[in-house]
Amino acid sequence: MKPAVTFAPGPSELYFTVEDHIRKALRKGFPSISHRSKTFEAAFSLATNGLKELLNIPEGFHIVFTASATEVWERHIQNLTEEKTCHFVNGAFSKRFHEVATLLNRRAEKIEVEEGHGFTSQTIAEPAELIALTHNETSTGVSLPVDFIHGFREMYPDSLIAVDAVSSLPYPVFDFSKIDSIYFSVQKCFGLPPGLGVWIVNEKCVEKAERLRANGLPIGAYHNLPDMVAFAKKNQTQETPNMLAIYLLGHVVQDVLRRGINTIRKETEYKAAILYQALEQHPVLKPFVSTKAFQSKTVIVADTGTHTGSLAKFLNDKGLHPGGGYGKFKSEQLRFANFPTHSKEQYEFLVDTLASYPG
Amino acid sequence: MKPAVTFAPGPSELYFTVEDHIRKALRKGFPSISHRSKTFEAAFSLATNGLKELLNIPEGFHIVFTASATEVWERHIQNLTEEKTCHFVNGAFSKRFHEVATLLNRRAEKIEVEEGHGFTSQTIAEPAELIALTHNETSTGVSLPVDFIHGFREMYPDSLIAVDAVSSLPYPVFDFSKIDSIYFSVQKCFGLPPGLGVWIVNEKCVEKAERLRANGLPIGAYHNLPDMVAFAKKNQTQETPNMLAIYLLGHVVQDVLRRGINTIRKETEYKAAILYQALEQHPVLKPFVSTKAFQSKTVIVADTGTHTGSLAKFLNDKGLHPGGGYGKFKSEQLRFANFPTHSKEQYEFLVDTLASYPG
Repeated sequence: MKPAVTFAPGPSELYFTVEDHIRKALRKGFPSISHRSKTFEAAFSLATNGLKELLNIPEGFHIVFTASATEVWERHIQNLTEEKTCHFVNGAFSKRFHEVATLLNRRAEKIEVEEGHGFTSQTIAEPAELIALTHNETSTGVSLPVDFIHGFREMYPDSLIAVDAVSSLPYPVFDFSKIDSIYFSVQKCFGLPPGLGVWIVNEKCVEKAERLRANGLPIGAYHNLPDMVAFAKKNQTQETPNMLAIYLLGHVVQDVLRRGINTIRKETEYKAAILYQALEQHPVLKPFVSTKAFQSKTVIVADTGTHTGSLAKFLNDKGLHPGGGYGKFKSEQLRFANFPTHSKEQYEFLVDTLASYPG
Repeated sequence: MKPAVTFAPGPSELYFTVEDHIRKALRKGFPSISHRSKTFEAAFSLATNGLKELLNIPEGFHIVFTASATEVWERHIQNLTEEKTCHFVNGAFSKRFHEVATLLNRRAEKIEVEEGHGFTSQTIAEPAELIALTHNETSTGVSLPVDFIHGFREMYPDSLIAVDAVSSLPYPVFDFSKIDSIYFSVQKCFGLPPGLGVWIVNEKCVEKAERLRANGLPIGAYHNLPDMVAFAKKNQTQETPNMLAIYLLGHVVQDVLRRGINTIRKETEYKAAILYQALEQHPVLKPFVSTKAFQSKTVIVADTGTHTGSLAKFLNDKGLHPGGGYGKFKSEQLRFANFPTHSKEQYEFLVDTLASYPG
C-alpha cells in the first residue's frame, strides 16, 4: 500500500524534508529565540540568498516577507499605485487582485477572458502605473507563457509589471529585466505549512513607494515597502514574523538547490506531460485548459464532469487525494498540483490509476 | 543539571505541550489540509471558543486573527478611526502604536510619561475616536491597573477603548463592558512560535468600520474588520492563514483551561512576588519599576546597572536565560517573562540563583 499523498494545490503536500527540519528547529529552540538575534538573521539570509541563487535573481532586487500572497496584493496597491492599475483577469485569483485595487479606491482596468483561457493581446486601454499579470491561475490551471509576460516591458516602459507566480515558482524562468515585482506563497510549490508570502521587488518599486510617501500618501504603517526593504537589508523584519516559516523556507530552498533546479524543472515537465496525456487519452476525462500553450505545468485541472465525485472517491481510496475544483467548478473539475515534492513515481501511479478509472 | 529555560519576553519559552501538539498536527497531515475544510474550521473554533471561555468574553465580541500584534495596530487605525486618536505612551510599544496613527495621517494625541512609570490621570486634551492603552509595556515592565483602564468608559463614552494586552493575557481580568478592543500575540504568554496576532473586538468596532467604509474610506482590502468578522463567523479567514498557529493556539488554550485559569493566575502572582522580593532584597539589583501598583506581573524588569553583562553570564551558565533590556536600556536592564509555561520550581531556582549572585 502506497502512503497517501495529496495533490491539492495548496495548502499542499509538505516538501518531504519539512518534518525533519521542524524537528531540528524545535531541538535547537529556534521558535524561542529573539527575532533580533544573529541566529534569526542567519535563517533570514539563508532563505533570501538561497532564493536569489535558485531563481537567478539579479542585483537590484529585494526579497521581503508578508503573511500571505493575499497581503502582497494589498501592499502592491498601497505602495506602487496612486490612481490607475490594469489587471489581466482569467480566474478567481487574478480577479481578486483587481477587487483589491477597487476596494482601495484605485481606477482598476480589467481585461478579462473566460476561465480556462489565456490572452492573445497585450493591449491595455489607458496607461497604468501597475500592470498585474497572473502567471499561473491556481483556480483554473491556466499559465501565461513567460514570453507573453516579458512582452509588456517594451510596450509599457512606464508601468510597473507585477507577476503573480504564487503556484508556479520555482518552475518558470523569468527574465528579471522584464518584470518589476513577483511573488509567491510558501504553501504551494515549496511545500511548507501556510503563513508566509514572499515578495520580490526591484528598486523601481521602492522608489515609487518613496515618492508616494513623500507626497503624503499612506503606503502602509509597518509593511510599507521602503521600511520592509530597509529591514530586509539587515536580515530582519519590523514585526515578530512567522520565524519558523522563514527558517523552513531557507532549508527547503537549500534542499532544492542540492537536488538541482534543472532536475526539478525537467521532472515537472515530465510529470505534467504524462498527466495531460492521460487526461487526453481518457474516454471520459479531459484537460480543462484545451490550448496547449496555456496549460499550466504546476496545477493541472481535469474536466471531470459528472464523474467528479466518483473519480475523487476512486482516487482517494488508493491514497491519491486530488484537489477539488475551485468555486463554481467544484462539482465538475479536479485539480492536481505538480510540485517539487511530488515524485515521478507518485505521478506515474496517479496516471496509471486515472487510466484504470472505468468511468 | 536543570534543563535550560529562557525568560525572554517573546518569542518566549514554548508552552510545555507545544512540541507534542506540533508532532500530532504533522502526523495528522494538518498543514496540508484545505483552509476551507471542516477540519480547519474545527481548529479555528477550538481556538476562538476556547479563548472566549478562558477570558470570559461575553456575547457581542468577535475574535479575528492577524499576522502579528503589529498588524493589529495598523488595522485599528484603518478600521476604527477617521481623524483623531489618543495614545497613552510609556514605552517603546505604546509609542509605536502612536507612530502608526501618525503614519496613517491621523491626528494622534500623545499623553506621555517616562519609561518605568504609569499614569495618574485619565484626562485627554480633546475627544478622540480611539483611546489606546497599553496594559503591559513589554519594553519596561509597567502594567496599568485594570481599574485605571476600566475608568475611561464613563469619562469618554463616545470613544472606542483599545487595550494592548500583548504580553499579559490571559493573566488580567477585564470587564468587557468597559473596553471595545483588546489584542495579544501568541508568542508571549501562550508560548507559541510567533506569527499570529489575536484581536478581540465588539460590535461597536465593526459598526464603526462599516460606517467608515460606507463613507468611502479605505479600511483595508482583505483584513478589514467587517470582512474578518464575517469570515470568523464561518470559522474561516479570507486568506490562507498561519493554520498551524491557530491549531496550536486552540490546543494550548485547552491545556490551560484544564490546568485552570485561577491556578495559573495564582501561580503568576506567586512567581512575580518572589522575584520582586529577590530584586528588592538584593544588594546590587532592584526592580526597574519602583511603584508597586505599576509593577507588571508577567514581564519583570530588573535594574541591573553595571552588573548587566556579568549577571547575564552568571544566569546563562546555570541554564537560566534572561531577556535583554529593551532599546536604550540594553546595557542596564534584564527582563524576565513570567508566563504560564514558567513553573514555580523554575522561578524558585531563578530567585535562589539571583540571590546567590555576588555582584
